[in-house]
Amino acid sequence: MVLTCLGYMKVLVAEKCGFCHGVRNAISVAEKVLAAENDVYSLGPIIHNRDVVERLAKSGLKTVSEVEAIRSGTVLIRSHGAAPKQIARLEEKGLNIVDATCILVKRVQHIAGELEAQGYKVVIIGEENHPEVQAVVGCAKDVIVIADESDLHRLPQNAKLGVVCQTTQNPEHFGRMLGAMGRGSFSEMKVINTLCKEAIKRQESAVRLCEQVDVMFVLGGLESANTRRLAELCAKVNKHTFHLQNWNELDTNVLHGKRTAGVTAGASTPDWIIGEFVKNLEVFDSSG
Amino acid sequence: MVLTCLGYMKVLVAEKCGFCHGVRNAISVAEKVLAAENDVYSLGPIIHNRDVVERLAKSGLKTVSEVEAIRSGTVLIRSHGAAPKQIARLEEKGLNIVDATCILVKRVQHIAGELEAQGYKVVIIGEENHPEVQAVVGCAKDVIVIADESDLHRLPQNAKLGVVCQTTQNPEHFGRMLGAMGRGSFSEMKVINTLCKEAIKRQESAVRLCEQVDVMFVLGGLESANTRRLAELCAKVNKHTFHLQNWNELDTNVLHGKRTAGVTAGASTPDWIIGEFVKNLEVFDSSG
Repeated sequence: MVLTCLGYMKVLVAEKCGFCHGVRNAISVAEKVLAAENDVYSLGPIIHNRDVVERLAKSGLKTVSEVEAIRSGTVLIRSHGAAPKQIARLEEKGLNIVDATCILVKRVQHIAGELEAQGYKVVIIGEENHPEVQAVVGCAKDVIVIADESDLHRLPQNAKLGVVCQTTQNPEHFGRMLGAMGRGSFSEMKVINTLCKEAIKRQESAVRLCEQVDVMFVLGGLESANTRRLAELCAKVNKHTFHLQNWNELDTNVLHGKRTAGVTAGASTPDWIIGEFVKNLEVFDSSG
Repeated sequence: MVLTCLGYMKVLVAEKCGFCHGVRNAISVAEKVLAAENDVYSLGPIIHNRDVVERLAKSGLKTVSEVEAIRSGTVLIRSHGAAPKQIARLEEKGLNIVDATCILVKRVQHIAGELEAQGYKVVIIGEENHPEVQAVVGCAKDVIVIADESDLHRLPQNAKLGVVCQTTQNPEHFGRMLGAMGRGSFSEMKVINTLCKEAIKRQESAVRLCEQVDVMFVLGGLESANTRRLAELCAKVNKHTFHLQNWNELDTNVLHGKRTAGVTAGASTPDWIIGEFVKNLEVFDSSG
């Protein structure tokens, strides 16, 4: 934990926060391709951070939501991956494909396919509309998505379930869902722990920090699953928790009367966003 | 549900209760062997019911707790099974072995061995000192027994866990333990549902019944795991729940002022114990 106690506000930054390996790799891949080529697309935002995506757009990266929007050039597969069908369509179009999928996400996709081949009914615990989950859903014929208890009715009776988890979920939720599934009528359940250990460390570090501060800021994209998870966990411990994309989004009224602030950031939040936020916070007069 | 409303007390008997297939088979095997042979032993009580064991003892069945206590003749392997090492020692002694192990218990033993052969660390959710669990523990080199949350520290970190369950546990507890294990640091968890479906039906039927009555009686051996489970579940719903072995154990003071009584019985409780109890209850004057 970095202790910075200058100016009016004591600001504590979570020991583990900001870019993870997968995000760092995706940006590095994008930058290399953009330096070498002109016609570069990303199928969906390369990472879930608007500021980073805008910066890469200035370097020429065109973010599209559909395969059909790309006619020529190079396509980056974003950190959250893409379904095999989408990749096949890109190949059919003769496009140059550069894969920037996080290796842990790639592993979930691979495991989903393997579990199905082994005769398991594939189940992923995660958010149905998140691109990582959508890509995994595309890796097996019939995948059941369980976001929470309200989805348990989707599980077949007496089945052999092959279970994976969206990488950015938290262990508590993963365990709760496995417990709920375990109370049901399954015959067998093969669970592969596909949680990202880095994400878990960030969650633990964020929760520890937010217990000690008057106000907690979680910086990162509003679409970013891992950032939202951090914000959810912190909000359970510290009700003065705010999920923001950057300093500009802060309503400084929330700082009034606060003496200590905690800052953490999702895996797709660049250091300069965190640095700028901390710097502004340290010199903010919260007493007035 | 059988409604018997004669005399003073309305007595309701659980729809599913009494002998299960495994117990019926073990008794039938014992009776056949006793009819044909003179020197017949059971390694531990053949089922967990004192009245039945006493009746079989009158027919000549000698119950011993150690292999060493048997010198010659025929040995019955009880419904809860025996560990392979024990059976090997019986074989070494040249004894005639007759296996009366419940087929569902046999399945758990087989699965434990298979999971270990597949490279899983075998875990059984159940009562450490119960003979069924002890026999399963003997079927793999290193089995971890998890009775409840206090045993979770026994699990290794980041391991491939192969999980089975004592057949007479209840799904709620099984699920709770799987949830707790799922919150941990496992890498993989292969869970085979080894719960006895008959036991589950008896549990559901007992819980439904005890919601409707003033006093609930659970009949069966005090050592009987499935009977104890019934009593535990009923006690959560109806605080006037009593686990008794037979009518003689009843303190009739507990009947005073009660109008309706529920009766259920474990899988090792014979019909005549249930019948005698119900008959006596129906003619008992609980108003005085």
